Amino acid sequence: MRRDASQKLLLFGATGDLSYRMLLPSLFGLASDGLLAPGLSIICTAHTDLSDGAFRGSVAESLRRTIPTDRMDGTSLQRFLDRLRYVRVDVSRPRDFADLAEAVGSTKGGLAIFLSMAPSLFQPTIQGLAAVGLGGDNVRIGLEKPLGYDLESSRSINDTVSGVFSEGRIFRVDHYLGKETVLNLLALRFANSLFEPLWNAGGIEHVQITVAETVGLEGRVGFYDAAGATRDMVQNHILQLLTLVAMEPPPHFDATAVRDEKVKVLRSLRRIDQTNVGALTVTGQYAAGAIDGHAVPAYADELVALSDTETFVAIKAHVDTWRWKGVPFYLRTGKRLPSRKSEISIQFRGVPHSIFGDVGAALRPNRLIISLQPNENVRLLLMTKDPGLDRDGIRLREVPLDIAIPNAFVDGRRRIAYERLLLDLIEGDQTLFVRRDEVEAQWRWIDGIRNGWKANAIRPRLYGAGTWGPSAAIALAERDGVTWHD
Amino acid sequence: MRRDASQKLLLFGATGDLSYRMLLPSLFGLASDGLLAPGLSIICTAHTDLSDGAFRGSVAESLRRTIPTDRMDGTSLQRFLDRLRYVRVDVSRPRDFADLAEAVGSTKGGLAIFLSMAPSLFQPTIQGLAAVGLGGDNVRIGLEKPLGYDLESSRSINDTVSGVFSEGRIFRVDHYLGKETVLNLLALRFANSLFEPLWNAGGIEHVQITVAETVGLEGRVGFYDAAGATRDMVQNHILQLLTLVAMEPPPHFDATAVRDEKVKVLRSLRRIDQTNVGALTVTGQYAAGAIDGHAVPAYADELVALSDTETFVAIKAHVDTWRWKGVPFYLRTGKRLPSRKSEISIQFRGVPHSIFGDVGAALRPNRLIISLQPNENVRLLLMTKDPGLDRDGIRLREVPLDIAIPNAFVDGRRRIAYERLLLDLIEGDQTLFVRRDEVEAQWRWIDGIRNGWKANAIRPRLYGAGTWGPSAAIALAERDGVTWHD
Repeated sequence: MRRDASQKLLLFGATGDLSYRMLLPSLFGLASDGLLAPGLSIICTAHTDLSDGAFRGSVAESLRRTIPTDRMDGTSLQRFLDRLRYVRVDVSRPRDFADLAEAVGSTKGGLAIFLSMAPSLFQPTIQGLAAVGLGGDNVRIGLEKPLGYDLESSRSINDTVSGVFSEGRIFRVDHYLGKETVLNLLALRFANSLFEPLWNAGGIEHVQITVAETVGLEGRVGFYDAAGATRDMVQNHILQLLTLVAMEPPPHFDATAVRDEKVKVLRSLRRIDQTNVGALTVTGQYAAGAIDGHAVPAYADELVALSDTETFVAIKAHVDTWRWKGVPFYLRTGKRLPSRKSEISIQFRGVPHSIFGDVGAALRPNRLIISLQPNENVRLLLMTKDPGLDRDGIRLREVPLDIAIPNAFVDGRRRIAYERLLLDLIEGDQTLFVRRDEVEAQWRWIDGIRNGWKANAIRPRLYGAGTWGPSAAIALAERDGVTWHD
Repeated sequence: MRRDASQKLLLFGATGDLSYRMLLPSLFGLASDGLLAPGLSIICTAHTDLSDGAFRGSVAESLRRTIPTDRMDGTSLQRFLDRLRYVRVDVSRPRDFADLAEAVGSTKGGLAIFLSMAPSLFQPTIQGLAAVGLGGDNVRIGLEKPLGYDLESSRSINDTVSGVFSEGRIFRVDHYLGKETVLNLLALRFANSLFEPLWNAGGIEHVQITVAETVGLEGRVGFYDAAGATRDMVQNHILQLLTLVAMEPPPHFDATAVRDEKVKVLRSLRRIDQTNVGALTVTGQYAAGAIDGHAVPAYADELVALSDTETFVAIKAHVDTWRWKGVPFYLRTGKRLPSRKSEISIQFRGVPHSIFGDVGAALRPNRLIISLQPNENVRLLLMTKDPGLDRDGIRLREVPLDIAIPNAFVDGRRRIAYERLLLDLIEGDQTLFVRRDEVEAQWRWIDGIRNGWKANAIRPRLYGAGTWGPSAAIALAERDGVTWHD
């Protein structure tokens, strides 16, 4: 435990889906492993009226479903439940905040607040907290996405929050940054001399970042149809992954140095607007189709309405820096794609000349594949010689080398990304949280694209559920001689 | 089978140790796998008087000992024995060559000769062959080492052979070049874009080549004491490995292009002579000691004589080219060392700066280790992140990645290096044989070292059997901050 670790945690939206699925199991995991101070109390709030006992009961039930039995025993569960208190808060009622402040008590030992709620509630919540003195210098605040729906709304939210909390106390969550493999990408780049000399336009031909889902709307009807794939996935996760691939080596692995480099990448993204949006982007919306042999309905049927919202987007991006001159970054995300997969694929340039003669397709350029979903892994693809007497010339074969150490070899389990992020919030390490200038640079770039679609009246093309998006998305890469890594 | 494959093979020294241990098992392996033309006959000679039947009997007995039973059946053995004929040849008797020529018959379909005999017999053998017309344009000749004991004697042998055979028909064997892993090193360098940009003084800190034996004299008394470790191992095997590590990319993987590049390396070796030999080399001779818990006697006791012959040598070499400016190549070989091991270790430079702070010894420079003995393998050592929450900063760990495809995945067995080399001889591919200019460049460099020792009256230092040579050899590397990879 760090010396400046908060001694209290205040969780808004405690009865929500994210809370039960991720946040409370993460806190349980941290507590079981002795990573939370014994005295750390967790005050949970939501607008539902519940007693401490009823809330603890529902948490216990949910944890028993979520946590594997070998990590769950009666003692550790009871100890965890003992940390929990529940306070009903309707954020529109100032009196509720007074009750909350009383329940929280002194913030002298440090308070970490985590808001897992709709952004429309941010403003009254922040103001409510400030009004009762829960916004002082001892308080940190964690914010879940979405932080707005465009640059302007994002600024408005940020203004509200920064009226009460200084930037050094605001922790904007992008849970992709808490993933083990994302950090491993940084270790790989900056702890090996093998990669960095090639990590530029001279060594890398292109980069692909894919976040593919098989699910459809899944009940997120109102939110998703208003947002679309670009704002739901590209604006945050995919652009964050891109910064980690593209950034210059930071002087240190700390919050300022790392985020300084990340924001430089975001500001160097070549602007996409109405003049080039047709050539550099493709949007789609899924029609009926089949995934894993099961028929699935069209987006419009799930929504029970016609809509211009994109459920798929592919973007050919460029980072206009010395390092990345001429290297395309192909980004794509979509719902109802053939498989659930999040990955970064780094395609190195091929050898300039084959000394082994015409070995055809056998000689493939090296690749590094960083997989985030469904499994976390880092794989390097190298060429090696097929053993044998090579009567018709040297025979080559691609070998996949798995670089990441499986978690199993270290502490026996894969941690949820939120474990690290909640602990970082409690302990005050901002390295893996998104700074205001990053969020705004992300929105500025995304707004350019969205305004471009509007100006050109570009509407999503239909694609069959269970396919890799509209054929135009395939063509976007194939025009450059690049094949998406499916 | 290539079109210009020889239809006959003539083996000198057929009753010798190399023949029974390596050459005949290799030929059996090739024959079993259908890689020898059905009509290829193998004429075996030696000075012993044996009937065809007696020779075949001893070959059968030897193969039954050498070849695993799952690859040996009565049919394939009998078919192989049917190819064999035996002719007694005393190379000092011209009449024997006339008998041999009669036994060989026409060379119109191509004849491959392999000399596995003492170099003192090369001259009468070559002359005997020429005298009976077994040296024509249809004949290739393979020569086993040692090819002389210094530049002058090597030239004399080469002159004798080239009086009868053109360079394009002379196949000088260095069996290290037939090893799968040596070829894999070339595939690795030239079929991947990942390594070549780093494969120079900018990316590589130093190279180590070790050929370590646990055995002592092993009955090679006369030969070994006259030769010593430098001529027995460095002049041929170690310098050949060095050429493959250090050479520029050849335009093609063929005999001319590859050997042109190799000889350039040999000619670029910085001369070691009486002015610098004391600083750049260390020699040793083993005293009594223990290996694997067994007491072993001193070299002098095995020899039953005092001797100045070195059984260990370590050399700090340099290749004076743009590519290798300032990169030391540490070479060493010895008998009675702690383990049997032949390997090349490529030590890349460390990262210029640790963004992860002071992680101490955890941050190790990348390494590539090409192992030839006891097992063939290629291993890349990379740094990766230890899974975990990194409360005290990112924790790093070195992971070993095995690049080579095990033979087992391809055709189920590891071939003897001689299989490839004999087949290349029969089929006329010189790529993996040593050209005259290479041999002579090797000797020129070795002669400089040996003359330097003589001029400075440098005698080998004693080292205990079962240690890694004299402490001065450790110091040779440690002075540069380099530790031998043991």
